[in-house]
Amino acid sequence: MAVALALSETVRGTTSPNPPVGAVVLDAEGNVAGQGATQPPGGPHAEVMALREAGERARGGTAFVTLEPCSHHGRTPPCTGALLAAGVTTVRYAVADPHPLGGGGADVLRAAGVDVEGGLLAAEVASGPLRAWLHFVRTGRPHVTWKYAATLDGRVAAADRTSRWISGPVSRAEVHAIRSAADAIVVGTGTVRADDAWLTVRDADGVLAPRQPLRVVVGTGGIPEGARVLDDSAETLLARTREPDEVLTALAERGVVDVLLEGGPTLAGAFVRAGRVDRILAYVAPMLLGAGPAALGPSGVSTITEAHRWRVEGVTMSGDDVRVAAVPLTGEGGS
Amino acid sequence: MAVALALSETVRGTTSPNPPVGAVVLDAEGNVAGQGATQPPGGPHAEVMALREAGERARGGTAFVTLEPCSHHGRTPPCTGALLAAGVTTVRYAVADPHPLGGGGADVLRAAGVDVEGGLLAAEVASGPLRAWLHFVRTGRPHVTWKYAATLDGRVAAADRTSRWISGPVSRAEVHAIRSAADAIVVGTGTVRADDAWLTVRDADGVLAPRQPLRVVVGTGGIPEGARVLDDSAETLLARTREPDEVLTALAERGVVDVLLEGGPTLAGAFVRAGRVDRILAYVAPMLLGAGPAALGPSGVSTITEAHRWRVEGVTMSGDDVRVAAVPLTGEGGS
Repeated sequence: MAVALALSETVRGTTSPNPPVGAVVLDAEGNVAGQGATQPPGGPHAEVMALREAGERARGGTAFVTLEPCSHHGRTPPCTGALLAAGVTTVRYAVADPHPLGGGGADVLRAAGVDVEGGLLAAEVASGPLRAWLHFVRTGRPHVTWKYAATLDGRVAAADRTSRWISGPVSRAEVHAIRSAADAIVVGTGTVRADDAWLTVRDADGVLAPRQPLRVVVGTGGIPEGARVLDDSAETLLARTREPDEVLTALAERGVVDVLLEGGPTLAGAFVRAGRVDRILAYVAPMLLGAGPAALGPSGVSTITEAHRWRVEGVTMSGDDVRVAAVPLTGEGGS
Repeated sequence: MAVALALSETVRGTTSPNPPVGAVVLDAEGNVAGQGATQPPGGPHAEVMALREAGERARGGTAFVTLEPCSHHGRTPPCTGALLAAGVTTVRYAVADPHPLGGGGADVLRAAGVDVEGGLLAAEVASGPLRAWLHFVRTGRPHVTWKYAATLDGRVAAADRTSRWISGPVSRAEVHAIRSAADAIVVGTGTVRADDAWLTVRDADGVLAPRQPLRVVVGTGGIPEGARVLDDSAETLLARTREPDEVLTALAERGVVDVLLEGGPTLAGAFVRAGRVDRILAYVAPMLLGAGPAALGPSGVSTITEAHRWRVEGVTMSGDDVRVAAVPLTGEGGS
């Protein structure tokens, strides 16, 4: 299952609105016969990819899948049928399918005599590659990760608004990898005016990646005509609203599941206030400024008892920076 | 040596201006014969305490000491003499004595035929119990630890100035222990007016500890006549200046070696600007406010390239909070 999980990580950012799933098929003797991961929308699911590679060796074998195999006809035939047709006799999956249409695959397989068990590495998969998709299925809203880089005293820029670079090279490379796995990158008009960033994903040589996340500019403020975010290196959506739920609804309609919020303090404040931040990724640089804008602007809190409370999910070093991951204390943000 | 280190930890905060040292004496067969730690100023040093307990068993034995034994007559006779008189034939110490008068003890012992070696657990001792004292001997200034509790977005209070409690119970208990090991607690007049705290050390039942750190109120602003910091539960020094070096000079003259700076953003800004913070202890609570005062006020930085740069020494969880310890990137703060 660990291999299936690793396979699913490789296709993050390419499968939405479908989940990034990994699958490994063993033959009857327990040798690896096939591996696969979800292809872009309209393409085969992970199980089918792995079964194709396994061919006849799948007969009497075992399939490990990170998500319960689907049993419905969507754009592709159900995976349960493919597993049965290939003669797989044992299926192990990590996370149960919460989808109203897709669920029930385990029962279909069991009814056909297959030995089925779920739950293997379920927590790792649910908090990892399938986190955003599970959130999307449960709430109907894209999953929002708010990423920011601040100093130890909580500032995202100096008094004169300079901010290059607050986080170190290791953190910046990590953020690039996170961007490449997102479906959309959201910023506000203020950030566009202040930073004029491309918001694209490039490799180490500066070459544009073949797949680019959707660039989303939120807000009613104007942006300069020649702003880099408007170039043709990736698609850009101008959401002429400041209301997080309106933005998220528009994104959901476009099949966006995994959102990286990289906006400034004002936009982040609006999302936090609305309970629409589902995860925080804070890169805290060991630096002190003593002046300059704070990471988070007004978010509806006037006294300490109203503070938004989170739970630290993990703390690690990212080069010289401290990386803090946190999730809302009450589970899903605001839902 | 690990035992000697642990012994020295037990007397932190009681020995200044002398260093908190621990010592263990083994008899000729290698069994523990005596243990000791530095007594309050004027009292015996660690070696003498351990030798007293060992008595005749020290003859032909080994002494483990966290600091190179002193060879000078101060308020007490030199420890080298005591070790030789007791017949100890092997001495192991952690940190070399940098003191212009106290140094050279190892040579004195060697000249008398004792097998002497230093460096055992030197890094642990130098960054732990002897950190403040070593800094004091090297610079002539007390060692300053700036401790603060802030939210993930870097705020020390909400918009209405409420701040109880930003950090959780585990962090608060830890801060209490750190306070009890300090020689002085420094705050500004603003913090006295805002919080009206006692700044005393109490046990779990609220009973005042027998030894209290000196309370120091810095600044030229007024404080209310009935302020708790002025009660008779501990000594209080009113430093009518905002200049960090004037404060530290006054404290050094009183034998203060280890200072805990618990002031607000303005006072912390003045110390950071002057390069007089030697260590940061930040308790970051997984909480968002979006408004309210930042942890650090103006500290002389107007653009990002002027930022004060630190090195993260350690990151740990303290209950639900993230505890970040950092030291100036260039070594000693501002020196």
